Amino acid sequence: MDTNAVLDLMWVLICGILVFFMQAGFTLVETGFTRSKNTGNIIMKNLMDFCIGSVAFWAIGYSLMYGASIGSVIGTPSWFFDSAADMHSLFFQTVFAATAATIVSGAIAERTKFTTYLIFSLLMTLLIYPISGSWVWNAGGWLAKMGFTDFAGSSVVHSVGGWASLVAAALVGPRIGKYNTDGTSNAIPGHSLMLGALGVFILWFGWFGFNPGSQLAISGDNAFKVAAIFITTNLAGASGALAAMFLTWAVYKKPDISMTLNGVLAGLVGVTAGCAAVSPMGAFFIGLICGVAVVFSIEFIDKKLKIDDPVGAISVHGVCGALGTLLVGVFATDGGLLYGGGFEKLGVQAIGVFSIAAWAMGASFVVLFILKKTMGLRVTKEEEIDGLDIHEHGTNVYND
Amino acid sequence: MDTNAVLDLMWVLICGILVFFMQAGFTLVETGFTRSKNTGNIIMKNLMDFCIGSVAFWAIGYSLMYGASIGSVIGTPSWFFDSAADMHSLFFQTVFAATAATIVSGAIAERTKFTTYLIFSLLMTLLIYPISGSWVWNAGGWLAKMGFTDFAGSSVVHSVGGWASLVAAALVGPRIGKYNTDGTSNAIPGHSLMLGALGVFILWFGWFGFNPGSQLAISGDNAFKVAAIFITTNLAGASGALAAMFLTWAVYKKPDISMTLNGVLAGLVGVTAGCAAVSPMGAFFIGLICGVAVVFSIEFIDKKLKIDDPVGAISVHGVCGALGTLLVGVFATDGGLLYGGGFEKLGVQAIGVFSIAAWAMGASFVVLFILKKTMGLRVTKEEEIDGLDIHEHGTNVYND
Amino acid sequence: MDTNAVLDLMWVLICGILVFFMQAGFTLVETGFTRSKNTGNIIMKNLMDFCIGSVAFWAIGYSLMYGASIGSVIGTPSWFFDSAADMHSLFFQTVFAATAATIVSGAIAERTKFTTYLIFSLLMTLLIYPISGSWVWNAGGWLAKMGFTDFAGSSVVHSVGGWASLVAAALVGPRIGKYNTDGTSNAIPGHSLMLGALGVFILWFGWFGFNPGSQLAISGDNAFKVAAIFITTNLAGASGALAAMFLTWAVYKKPDISMTLNGVLAGLVGVTAGCAAVSPMGAFFIGLICGVAVVFSIEFIDKKLKIDDPVGAISVHGVCGALGTLLVGVFATDGGLLYGGGFEKLGVQAIGVFSIAAWAMGASFVVLFILKKTMGLRVTKEEEIDGLDIHEHGTNVYND
Repeated sequence: MDTNAVLDLMWVLICGILVFFMQAGFTLVETGFTRSKNTGNIIMKNLMDFCIGSVAFWAIGYSLMYGASIGSVIGTPSWFFDSAADMHSLFFQTVFAATAATIVSGAIAERTKFTTYLIFSLLMTLLIYPISGSWVWNAGGWLAKMGFTDFAGSSVVHSVGGWASLVAAALVGPRIGKYNTDGTSNAIPGHSLMLGALGVFILWFGWFGFNPGSQLAISGDNAFKVAAIFITTNLAGASGALAAMFLTWAVYKKPDISMTLNGVLAGLVGVTAGCAAVSPMGAFFIGLICGVAVVFSIEFIDKKLKIDDPVGAISVHGVCGALGTLLVGVFATDGGLLYGGGFEKLGVQAIGVFSIAAWAMGASFVVLFILKKTMGLRVTKEEEIDGLDIHEHGTNVYND
Repeated sequence: MDTNAVLDLMWVLICGILVFFMQAGFTLVETGFTRSKNTGNIIMKNLMDFCIGSVAFWAIGYSLMYGASIGSVIGTPSWFFDSAADMHSLFFQTVFAATAATIVSGAIAERTKFTTYLIFSLLMTLLIYPISGSWVWNAGGWLAKMGFTDFAGSSVVHSVGGWASLVAAALVGPRIGKYNTDGTSNAIPGHSLMLGALGVFILWFGWFGFNPGSQLAISGDNAFKVAAIFITTNLAGASGALAAMFLTWAVYKKPDISMTLNGVLAGLVGVTAGCAAVSPMGAFFIGLICGVAVVFSIEFIDKKLKIDDPVGAISVHGVCGALGTLLVGVFATDGGLLYGGGFEKLGVQAIGVFSIAAWAMGASFVVLFILKKTMGLRVTKEEEIDGLDIHEHGTNVYND
Repeated sequence: MDTNAVLDLMWVLICGILVFFMQAGFTLVETGFTRSKNTGNIIMKNLMDFCIGSVAFWAIGYSLMYGASIGSVIGTPSWFFDSAADMHSLFFQTVFAATAATIVSGAIAERTKFTTYLIFSLLMTLLIYPISGSWVWNAGGWLAKMGFTDFAGSSVVHSVGGWASLVAAALVGPRIGKYNTDGTSNAIPGHSLMLGALGVFILWFGWFGFNPGSQLAISGDNAFKVAAIFITTNLAGASGALAAMFLTWAVYKKPDISMTLNGVLAGLVGVTAGCAAVSPMGAFFIGLICGVAVVFSIEFIDKKLKIDDPVGAISVHGVCGALGTLLVGVFATDGGLLYGGGFEKLGVQAIGVFSIAAWAMGASFVVLFILKKTMGLRVTKEEEIDGLDIHEHGTNVYND
């Protein structure tokens, strides 16, 4: 292998390690934002996401996404990927697939059956994620051919996870005690914002693999592009946090911790589609917009739609994923609305955003509706009140 | 230095950083699986492992392992390694040595004297680990010359730590309250499976340095090999967790959290010897086998041997380290039993496994027996009941 | 871009990611060493440090530090850095700047107004850090031209943060309950040494980016230098911990956990200036000296100066940063006192140490004095007693 190829492969592997570590970040955010009696269940869901996902994506998912495209909508399946020249790619794409799956576990935390969740998670990595993924990241995919831009997966990864979360949280219903008979909503504080904060730092750390790794190369002039992606990614995370903090300060009169943490993630999710297409200033504004949007979206879903999403996954990954993908049409220095590109790019981005949303919601609905009618989605009332850890796993996570 | 050499050196350094971080993972697993009153003591043991190990391995350990082999059993000693061309190697091997030492602290947690432990830990990195290590990883070592395969240290690192743990846990005896007068065993739950889970994620993260770094190169066609090691490592971790989870689900009727976490580690330890020699499918099966083995081994050691190992270190590192090394003789695509290689490779693997086990157990026994007869291994009954933190370190780790 | 330039850029980016992660380490150390009622406030301060710092350093700070030097004391300002060839450098320097700012938040924890802190933090990254930074790391800076050695920032980063901490902690005053009417000092234990220990491991992990990344290159013979820096860095961290542990063991009769953790940081801070200039043995001794110094310094500041620094930031970063910078004049293999270099190098080091200290203290004093007289530095007595989380952010971090 020549030096440039070694450099590129090494870069993809290093970035893949960072993205792997995001699993720990998601676990910490999801456990921290929920109650201690369900911590073990969330740990198991997140761990199994990754374990099932690693096997499923190797077994067939990777080929459904990256195999020769059939009709521009799916890759050619083949079993148990084992091509020496592309193992680095399998690793990198596996950790991405697992990210999409793991997003859902937060939205349906504290009341969902473990078994049902495992089956849904398997189908996410095996089918739902690879199919829409093949539209964009398989060179033969129909959205790829239209010129749709989703560099590192605001839509392909995050919004797929976010829209699946929306359907799942709606179907599984709110936690006991979340809504009052008069329709008002109660806050159910998480057991440790410390875990949540550490999780956000780990996710931000991992994002420096997620976005710059998606260049899939660093040799030659790729190096400049990779370096620029570090800056766009970082600025959007920072401005997302600033926007969420100052907005909650203005509205609630105090700078809100959990909203600020979600503001970081909102900015990072938002810039993921356009991190290679926008300027540092564009990234700064994408972060700001997503940091504002996530606060209003969390309020709207909680209070108006009355869908109970304990960690804000729908808003962070679904809404900001979609919004960030659309904003590429506004801020892309080549073809964006603000750079004289007219509405064409924005139109293509909108087609992609809505197609992916429709697929993710539709496919998740079919799977979850069948699961609901057969195995059931929800634990019993007693199990939910006592906590899932003791009933589903026979243990408490915290002891003396 | 030419570009290929730079690439290789950089790869070793990056992987070394990841392996360093495994110290944090071990600390979290060991504290999480034990009681809060001993948390500070475990932190200190793990930190000192690494600090003492770093100094000892630089001072002389590295040369005992990698110096010109004397009689194929030990390297030529030299003091205070300072060769500019090999500093990256010293760093990488230091973090490996520290891993072997740190394994023991978990098995003897909650009742062992701090002073005694420090002396044992020093001798681990100074003598015990480098000597058997030189048999395999020193080109002149007798096992190396026999064709014994232990790519990244299932035996050299993990089983040495695991077998030393067995001897140490047996000599120090069980914790007060662990065994009833009728011989039955009580579970003593750890104070935070959350810490344990984060530790496992960090260890998995670090394993992407441990195994792929052991190629010691990434230039040229090494790159393909490195990438393949990512996949074998990852699949074995995943299948280890799946095996442990489904087995405990079948046997205990509930998917067990701590066994599943240990299943990840079992798969990772198991594939460490053969990660560069087996196919993805082989790695998947090695993980499955080790995930099953770890559950039975933990039960057996706890209930039959009545050796009290609070974190399962003997099973994870000793048993699965040995098992994984043997399974190279079965699954190696070049020479393994299932690939038409006959029993020759398996025989060599068995010789290595048993020689290393004999050395690790024998040497640990001599050291610990002397320590037991002189300084004593155990804290007083009062100290153990009150907790080691307050008596040995004068503080509580957790406060308001 | 040619291969060597790609390698160097990649190295800087990878190391920058590690330094970014130190933000998580600082957050853990600072929250762990303080009480649970103020955890959320510290999280927000540390997160905002980095977010404000990222924006401020991009907006103007970077150019003030690295722009063409004006009169050897400041760089030429330019707004919103956007040079494609230097984005990697902007990223690396941004994470360094944020480190300097984040040090202060620990020293003034548990009683400082959030708003005031944000303004001070902004001015740190915008002005205070870049100006003294330009003296040393801008090729045209007056200390750079004198031959002052501060390779990775014992003074430029750590002591600037540490001396600003000294001024800030003195001006904001001690926490309620810290000092008795007879002048004696009460220990106020932190709420989780477990968080503190994890933070120290993360900081050590990040230091393998901080010091080796400061070579700013890895191609060609830079690779040997980078590898040597791994060893000097690691040995100093280890010997710092050993020194602090044995010293507290001798003095307090028990090996102290928090002092040992600070010993690691003391050794790492101390070797940061000279990591590329000293031998492994030199680094070992620098760590030992700093590990001893940090214990006496923490005692002295707490009991004699009666300045309340909850995490020991002044001693770790200020005192050991300065001491480590001076020790380059003693241990540098080229020009150090012990290597026949006479007092010249030591003299230059002393000039740098005192100039930077004077600037950091003077500038911080002006900013904080104005803030004290206008907005006030301190929360009310009621807010301090109840905890800053509930008053400043309307939430508790820990719940059921």
